[in-house]
Amino acid sequence: MIERYARATMVALWSDATRLHLWCLLEVALARAQAKRKDIPEQAAGVIARYTRFDEQLLARSKELEKETHHDVVAFLRALEERMVEAEKGLSGYSRYLHFGATSSDILDSAFAIQLVQAAKILEKGLESLNEAIKARAQEHKDTICLGRSHGMAAEPTTFGLKLLSFYAEFNRAIERLQKAREEVSTISMSGTVGHYAFQHPDVEVEVANYLNQTLQDSLHKTLQGKNSDKILELVAKIPWQLRCEPIATQVIPRDRHAMFFATLGVIASSLERLSTEIRHLQRSEVAEVSEDFTAGQTGSSAMPHKRNPILSENVTGLSRLVRMSVQPALENVALWHERDISHSSVERVIAPDSTITLDFAIARMTNVIENLLVFPQSMEKNLIETKGVLFSHGLLLQLLKKGIGRNDAYKIVQRTSILALDKGEELAEILKLDEEINSLFSDAELSTLSDNSHYVRHVDDLFARVLK
Amino acid sequence: MIERYARATMVALWSDATRLHLWCLLEVALARAQAKRKDIPEQAAGVIARYTRFDEQLLARSKELEKETHHDVVAFLRALEERMVEAEKGLSGYSRYLHFGATSSDILDSAFAIQLVQAAKILEKGLESLNEAIKARAQEHKDTICLGRSHGMAAEPTTFGLKLLSFYAEFNRAIERLQKAREEVSTISMSGTVGHYAFQHPDVEVEVANYLNQTLQDSLHKTLQGKNSDKILELVAKIPWQLRCEPIATQVIPRDRHAMFFATLGVIASSLERLSTEIRHLQRSEVAEVSEDFTAGQTGSSAMPHKRNPILSENVTGLSRLVRMSVQPALENVALWHERDISHSSVERVIAPDSTITLDFAIARMTNVIENLLVFPQSMEKNLIETKGVLFSHGLLLQLLKKGIGRNDAYKIVQRTSILALDKGEELAEILKLDEEINSLFSDAELSTLSDNSHYVRHVDDLFARVLK
Amino acid sequence: MIERYARATMVALWSDATRLHLWCLLEVALARAQAKRKDIPEQAAGVIARYTRFDEQLLARSKELEKETHHDVVAFLRALEERMVEAEKGLSGYSRYLHFGATSSDILDSAFAIQLVQAAKILEKGLESLNEAIKARAQEHKDTICLGRSHGMAAEPTTFGLKLLSFYAEFNRAIERLQKAREEVSTISMSGTVGHYAFQHPDVEVEVANYLNQTLQDSLHKTLQGKNSDKILELVAKIPWQLRCEPIATQVIPRDRHAMFFATLGVIASSLERLSTEIRHLQRSEVAEVSEDFTAGQTGSSAMPHKRNPILSENVTGLSRLVRMSVQPALENVALWHERDISHSSVERVIAPDSTITLDFAIARMTNVIENLLVFPQSMEKNLIETKGVLFSHGLLLQLLKKGIGRNDAYKIVQRTSILALDKGEELAEILKLDEEINSLFSDAELSTLSDNSHYVRHVDDLFARVLK
Amino acid sequence: MIERYARATMVALWSDATRLHLWCLLEVALARAQAKRKDIPEQAAGVIARYTRFDEQLLARSKELEKETHHDVVAFLRALEERMVEAEKGLSGYSRYLHFGATSSDILDSAFAIQLVQAAKILEKGLESLNEAIKARAQEHKDTICLGRSHGMAAEPTTFGLKLLSFYAEFNRAIERLQKAREEVSTISMSGTVGHYAFQHPDVEVEVANYLNQTLQDSLHKTLQGKNSDKILELVAKIPWQLRCEPIATQVIPRDRHAMFFATLGVIASSLERLSTEIRHLQRSEVAEVSEDFTAGQTGSSAMPHKRNPILSENVTGLSRLVRMSVQPALENVALWHERDISHSSVERVIAPDSTITLDFAIARMTNVIENLLVFPQSMEKNLIETKGVLFSHGLLLQLLKKGIGRNDAYKIVQRTSILALDKGEELAEILKLDEEINSLFSDAELSTLSDNSHYVRHVDDLFARVLK
Repeated sequence: MIERYARATMVALWSDATRLHLWCLLEVALARAQAKRKDIPEQAAGVIARYTRFDEQLLARSKELEKETHHDVVAFLRALEERMVEAEKGLSGYSRYLHFGATSSDILDSAFAIQLVQAAKILEKGLESLNEAIKARAQEHKDTICLGRSHGMAAEPTTFGLKLLSFYAEFNRAIERLQKAREEVSTISMSGTVGHYAFQHPDVEVEVANYLNQTLQDSLHKTLQGKNSDKILELVAKIPWQLRCEPIATQVIPRDRHAMFFATLGVIASSLERLSTEIRHLQRSEVAEVSEDFTAGQTGSSAMPHKRNPILSENVTGLSRLVRMSVQPALENVALWHERDISHSSVERVIAPDSTITLDFAIARMTNVIENLLVFPQSMEKNLIETKGVLFSHGLLLQLLKKGIGRNDAYKIVQRTSILALDKGEELAEILKLDEEINSLFSDAELSTLSDNSHYVRHVDDLFARVLK
Repeated sequence: MIERYARATMVALWSDATRLHLWCLLEVALARAQAKRKDIPEQAAGVIARYTRFDEQLLARSKELEKETHHDVVAFLRALEERMVEAEKGLSGYSRYLHFGATSSDILDSAFAIQLVQAAKILEKGLESLNEAIKARAQEHKDTICLGRSHGMAAEPTTFGLKLLSFYAEFNRAIERLQKAREEVSTISMSGTVGHYAFQHPDVEVEVANYLNQTLQDSLHKTLQGKNSDKILELVAKIPWQLRCEPIATQVIPRDRHAMFFATLGVIASSLERLSTEIRHLQRSEVAEVSEDFTAGQTGSSAMPHKRNPILSENVTGLSRLVRMSVQPALENVALWHERDISHSSVERVIAPDSTITLDFAIARMTNVIENLLVFPQSMEKNLIETKGVLFSHGLLLQLLKKGIGRNDAYKIVQRTSILALDKGEELAEILKLDEEINSLFSDAELSTLSDNSHYVRHVDDLFARVLK
Repeated sequence: MIERYARATMVALWSDATRLHLWCLLEVALARAQAKRKDIPEQAAGVIARYTRFDEQLLARSKELEKETHHDVVAFLRALEERMVEAEKGLSGYSRYLHFGATSSDILDSAFAIQLVQAAKILEKGLESLNEAIKARAQEHKDTICLGRSHGMAAEPTTFGLKLLSFYAEFNRAIERLQKAREEVSTISMSGTVGHYAFQHPDVEVEVANYLNQTLQDSLHKTLQGKNSDKILELVAKIPWQLRCEPIATQVIPRDRHAMFFATLGVIASSLERLSTEIRHLQRSEVAEVSEDFTAGQTGSSAMPHKRNPILSENVTGLSRLVRMSVQPALENVALWHERDISHSSVERVIAPDSTITLDFAIARMTNVIENLLVFPQSMEKNLIETKGVLFSHGLLLQLLKKGIGRNDAYKIVQRTSILALDKGEELAEILKLDEEINSLFSDAELSTLSDNSHYVRHVDDLFARVLK
Repeated sequence: MIERYARATMVALWSDATRLHLWCLLEVALARAQAKRKDIPEQAAGVIARYTRFDEQLLARSKELEKETHHDVVAFLRALEERMVEAEKGLSGYSRYLHFGATSSDILDSAFAIQLVQAAKILEKGLESLNEAIKARAQEHKDTICLGRSHGMAAEPTTFGLKLLSFYAEFNRAIERLQKAREEVSTISMSGTVGHYAFQHPDVEVEVANYLNQTLQDSLHKTLQGKNSDKILELVAKIPWQLRCEPIATQVIPRDRHAMFFATLGVIASSLERLSTEIRHLQRSEVAEVSEDFTAGQTGSSAMPHKRNPILSENVTGLSRLVRMSVQPALENVALWHERDISHSSVERVIAPDSTITLDFAIARMTNVIENLLVFPQSMEKNLIETKGVLFSHGLLLQLLKKGIGRNDAYKIVQRTSILALDKGEELAEILKLDEEINSLFSDAELSTLSDNSHYVRHVDDLFARVLK
C-alpha cells in the first residue's frame, strides 16, 4: 500500500489503532461471556471492561513491549495487565482473568475477520457507487449510436449506453461475489490452541459473536469516523453485522476462506481492468469517442502540452494487477502445517491491507472517471461513417440467404463486395448497386434499408429493461 | 493435461467429439426455436434436425475443412452443409437456414458453458465422494487420541477424527463454492455479433435454454457413457440442468464468469494441498502416524526397497499447483478489447480441460488415499508420550492463574518447568512434583488430573454433532 | 499442450519415445563409464550397450509394466532386463549391472536436462528467425514515417522501422536470456539417493557427461528428424553440447535451476505479448496502419464477411498467458522437502512440454505474422496529418524556452494553442499564425520549420547502426 | 512493505528523499552534459548545479505542487524553478534550461534504474553474508552424521554439513543470477518522448552515464548513510557503478528488463523458502535435530509456554510468497501500448520497494537463523538409530547383485527383510542374520560392514572441496 493509491477510511481500518481497538473489544466480549457463564468472576469482567479500552498510550506501550517479547498479542496483554495491576489495588488481582483460556489466534483471527468484513462492506458500497455512475451514463447514452467492435475491428452499430450496460451487469455480479466473499470470512472463533475448546466452553464464542453483532456498528463507526469518507461509513452502516462462529477451527480459522476472499478481489479487479481498457481504447487519438475529464490544474505530459492522456484509466489497469497479485499467496496460505503454522501471517499483514486499499482506491477512481467522462457522439458517428457501410455485411449475408443463395456463395458475395468497398474507400451501398449479382436480387429500396442503424439497436430498450429491472 | 493424471469421463467431456456433439445440439435447438417463432420455415428446422447429428465422419470432415478455413465453427458448418446439400435434393435448399442469424460465439460460448457446468457437476460428485471417505474415517477415529501440533511442534492432545473433521468441513465449503461457480457459468447466449440481438430475437435463446434443460441430461449421458466412470454419470444425473440466458453479452459471454470459475478451482486445489500436506507430514519416518496403503505390485524407491513413500499425497500436492496455475490466465482473460477479442480462446482451450481434468483426478486420488489410509494409533500414543507431558502446560498455566498467580509469573513458572522437562527428558509431572513453588500450590492429585487427555477432547462429540448435522 | 498450438519437432522432443531413447542412452553411458573404471565388468557394459536400445516394443512393454509397478523408471529397467535375460543365456547374468548403483533420479533428471537444453536450443533458433524477420522489416521501413504514441495518444513522428528496431533489440535480449537459462539447466547428475555418491564414484558422471557431449548431437538428430522442421534441427546442430556435472545435488538436480528456466520463458512470452499487442493496435479499424496477411482460403468472421481480424496476434497474446502460467508452479517446485520429494514431478511433466511447445509455436506464428505483415504507409501518413500538427508541441515548447519564455508560461502557451487546434480541427500552424503572442516571437519561416518530420527522425540511421552493429 | 519486515537502508533507498535526490543528480548531470556540448549555455548548467540540490524544503514544496499538477516530475521541476527564479535575479532566466529537451521518463526511468541497481547490490551483499554463515556452519558440521531423507522418509546417512553445502551452492547461483539481473536493469536513457532523441543529442546520455558512474558511489553513500546498516553500504561500495545507455528505448526503458529483474527475485525467494522449510522440518518435535535460537526475552506461544517454535523460518516462508507475488505483475508490465502507457507505473511504485525490502529482510533474518542455529548431533544420531538399519537397504541390494542375484530377486529380498525390520522394530542386521537366503550369501563380517555410516559419506571432503573451491 502506498499513500498515493489509498483512501483514508480504508487505511484507518487497517491501522494499528483499529487493530488494538478490536482486540480490546474482543477481550472485553470474551470476559463478559465468560462471566455470564460463571467461568470467571463477574467482578473480573467488570474490571476488564473498565481498563481494556484503546487509547494512544496503550498503543505506544504495546509497541514498546513488542520489541521485548517479539509477539504482538503478548505485548498487548502485558500492556493491559500493567495498567490493571496499577489500578486494581484491592481488586483481588482480576487482571489474570484477562484473555483467560484463550490463545492469541482467538483474538487475532476474530479481529482479522471483523476487518475483512468491514473492508468488504466498504468495497461493496464503492462498487454500488461505481454502478450508479455507470447506470446513469448508460441511460444517458442509451440511444447514442456507436461502433461495436470485435478484434478491434468495426463490427456492427450498437449504442454507447449498451456498452456501459454490460459493465453495469458485470459490476452487479461483482457486488454479489463480494457479498459471498464477505460471508466466507464472517466467522470468529474462540476454540483455543488446536481448535477443540479445551479451556473455553463452545458457548463462549457464541455469546461473543452475538455481542459483537450488536456493538460493532457503533464501535467501528467511532473508530473510523473523522476520515475523508464518513459518507461511506453511513452507507456501510446499512449492512448489518452477522458474524458467525467457525464450525471447526484448527487453531486458526481455516485459510481456504481467506483464499476465496482474495481470489474474489482478483476477479473484481479484472472487471475494473476491462472497463479501464475500454476507456483507454475509446480515448486513443484515432478513436476519440470519449475522454477522461481534464480538470483544471492537471498537467498532462511534461514534454507534450497538447496531450490529454487517459492516465486515470491506465492507472486503474495497473492497480488491477496489484490487486490480483494477492491471489496467489492467499492460495499458498491455505496449506498450513498441521493445526497451523505462522507462514500465512506475514503474507496477510501485507496483502489484506494492500489489496483492499488498492481495490477501494481503484473503484473510487473509476467511479470518478465514469461520472466525469466526456462522451463525443459526433466522433462516434464519424467512426461509423468511415466504415463505408461494410459493417452491414452480416445483414446483407442474411438477406442473401433469405433470397435463396447458399451460405457459401452468399459469404463470397459479401466478402467480395465489402472488401472492395474498404479497399476503394467507397460506400458498400454504392458498390452493391454496381454489382450485377446483387442487382439481380435486390431493389434499390431493399438495399438502402439494409444499412439502417435503427434496425441494429431495436432491442436496446428491452435489454435495458431486463438488466436494470 | 496428460493421460497419467486423467480420468476417462472428464477427458471425454473435453473431446472433439463431445464438442461437436454439443454444437450439433445447439444448432438443432436454434433452428427449432426459430421455426417455432416462424423466423425460419418449419421444414428447414426439420431438415436441420435430421442431418445435424454427430458422427465420426462429421468430425473427420470438419477437421479437414478447418485446415482450409482456419476456423473451427465455419468448418463445422460447411461440413454440415455439404451433407445437407447432398441429401436435400428437392428440399429447397434448407441448409442455408442452418446457424441462421447466429455468430460463432453463440455456439462456441453456449457449448463451452455446457461443458463447464458438466465438469463442475462431476467435480462436485467427486468432492462428495471424497467427503464421504473423510467422514467415515473421521467417525472411525473420532476418539483416537493424537497430538495436535502448531508450528510443527507438539501442542495439545486432540483426536485424529477431529483433524479429519476439519477437512470434512473444508471440503463441504469447497462443494458450496463449486456450486456457486457452476451457477456463474450456467448461462448461454444467442445474442449475436455485438450482443444486441440484431438478427436473432431475444426469445430464441430462451427457447433454446429451455430445450437444453430438458434434453441435455440424456444427450450428454449418451455421449459420455461407456467410459470408466459411468457411476459418476449416474450421480451427476441427479443435478438438474438449469441453464439461463446471459442478461447481456457483448459478442461473448462475459469472462468474469469464467475467471470466477477457475479461481474457485484454485481455492479447492489449495484445500487438497492442505490435506495432502497433512498426510505427508504424518507419514514421515519420525512421525509415522499414518501411511498410504502400499498396494501389492507397487514399487517404492528403485534404489531403496525399504521405503514406503507418500507418493500419492506428494503427487496431489503437485497437481494442486497445476490446477492453481489456471487462475492467473483466467483473470487476464477478462479484459477483452471492446466487444471481444480472441485472445482468451487459446487460453481456455488449454486451461478448461487441463484444470478440470487435473482437479478431477486429484480429488479421486485423494479419495483413494483417504479410504485406504493406514492409521497407527500406537504411533500416535507413542508420539504423545514422548512429549513428556509438556503439552499440558497451557492447562497448568490456567490453573496457576486460578490459584491467584499473576499471568506473567505463571507464564514464567510454566516455561521454566516445561523446558526443564524437555531438556532433561523427564516427565513434566515429575519435574512439577519436585518444584517448591508448584508444591506449595497443588496437591499431587491435582497435578495428576492436569495431564488427563480426556479433558482435552471432551467437546469432540459436540463438534462432530455440529459439523455433521 | 494441444495439437492446435504445437510444432512437430518440439512435440517429438517431449514424446515417450524420445524420453525412453534418452534413458537408454544414459544407461549405456553409465555402464560404459563404470566399466572404464572397472566398477562393473567390461562385458557387462558390452551386453548393456547391445540391448539397451530404444524401439517401439520397449516402449510398449514399459508402459505395460508401469501399470503394475506404478513407477516409470522401474518399469523401463524391468523391460530391459527381460530382454537381456532372454538374450543373455550364457552371458553370466550381466543384466544385473544395468543401472548399477544408480537411483531413478540420476536417469530422470539427466534426461530431463537434455530435453530442456534441446528445447532451449530450438527456441533460440526460433527467436533468431523471428529476429531476422523483424530486422528485415525494420530495415525495409527504416524511413517510413508514422506516429509515435504514448498513452495511446499521438506523441511525435517516428518511423515504423524504428518501432520494429526496439523489438529487435528486445528479442536479442530474449536470446541472451534464453542462453543463460539453457546454461542453468545444462547439468546432469549421477550422485545417488541423497547426492553423496555412496554407490557411484563421482568420476562416473564426468565420464557420462563427456560421452553425452560427443554423442548427443547425432543421437537426438536421429530421434527427432523426419518431423516438420528438419531445418530447425540443422540450425540447432550448430549449438554444441556442453553438459556439466551438478556440483552438488540432493537426490535431484536442484529445482532453482528449473525455476530460473521457466521464469525466463515467462519473460520471453511477455515480449511476444508486447509485439502482438502492437500489431493488434496498429491493425484496428481506426488506425489501419498494418494488417496481418489475409491468406487465400482463410475465413474471417463467420458472421461478418468483411472483417480482417488480427487473429494471429490475438492468439499470440493468449499463448503468452499460457507460457507465463508455468512460472508460478516452477517457483513452488523449488522448496522440495529435505533431499527431495516428488511433488515437482507432476508439475514438470506438464509445464515442461507445455511451456516450450507453446512458446515455440508462438514464436513461429509471430515470425510468420511479421514476415507477411502488410504495412500501409499511406495510412500512417494520414494518421499523422490528422493530428493537425499538435504533435509538434514539444518542439514549440523548446523553441519558446530558447526565446527566453519561462517554462511555465511556455507550457501554457503551447497547451492553449494545441488544444485549440484539436478542438477546432485546424492545423496548429494556422492557429499559431493567428496568435499574437506567438507572432511576436516567431517568423513564419520559423514556424514552418517547427513542423518538419525529418527533424524528428534525424538520428534513426545512428540508432539502426548501434542496434544492428 | 511494512515496517515489521524492513531494514532501514533498503527503506531509505526507496524513500521520497532518495528519489528526489536522484532526480536532482540527474538534472544536474543532464545540464552539465548539455553545456559541454554547447546545447545550453554554460552559465545555465552552473546555475542549475547550484540550485538543484535536495533538501527537505524541496521535498515539501514538490509534494505541495503535486497536489495541483497531479504529476510528480512536473511538480518537482516547478519547485526547482520557483527556487531558481527567486534566486536568479540578474541571472538571465537560466531556469528554463532545467530539464531542457527532456521528458519525464528520462529522469524517472534513469533514477529507477539507479535504485534497482543499488537494491541489487544490497541484496547481493546480503546473500554473500548469508552464504558466509551457511559455509561456516557447513564446515562446522561437515562430518556430523545425520539422516538423508527423500519423501520425508529416512533414506541414507549423510552429514548435516553436506545438507548445508547444497544450500551454499544454491545461494551462490542466486548471487550470480542477481548479478545478471542487475546488469539487465543497469541502463539509463535520455532519448525523449518516443525514444528517437528528437530534442536531445544521443551523446548527452553517454556523458550523463559516465558522470553518474563516477559520482554515484559518494552521492548515494551520503544519502543513505546514518541508517542501521552502514556496514552494508561499505560492502556495497566495492561493487563499481557501470551504468550503460539503453541502446533503444521507446519513451521508456523497455520493461522486459524489469520483468527479468523481478522474476529473478522470485527465484531467489524460492531458494530461501527451501532453506526455511528444511529448518522447519528439522525443528519439528519428532525430529528435533536443530532449533532456532530462543533468545532471552522472546515469548513463544502465548498459551503454551513450553513451545519453541521455528517462527523465524516460518516467517521467511511467508515472506518468500510475498517476494514471488511481484513476478506476475512485472510480467504483465512488459506489453505497454505503443511507445508507452503508464499502467506499469503504479505497479512499480509498489513492487519495486516491496519486493526488494522484503527480500532484503528475509535474507538477513535467514542469516541470523543460520548463524545462531542450534544443532543437535545426538538427536541426529538417535533418528538414525531408530531406522533400524533399513536405510542400508540400497547397499544390500547392490551387494546382492554383485553376488550374482538378479535385480528383481534382489529387490524382493531387500524389501522383504527391511519391511520386516520396520514392522518388528528390530535391526535389519539381526533380521538378515536369521534369513536363510542371506546367510547362504554373506558372512557375518560382510553383513556388519554393510551398515557402516562412514562408507556413505566417504566423498564428503571431495564435495566440499569442489563446491567451496
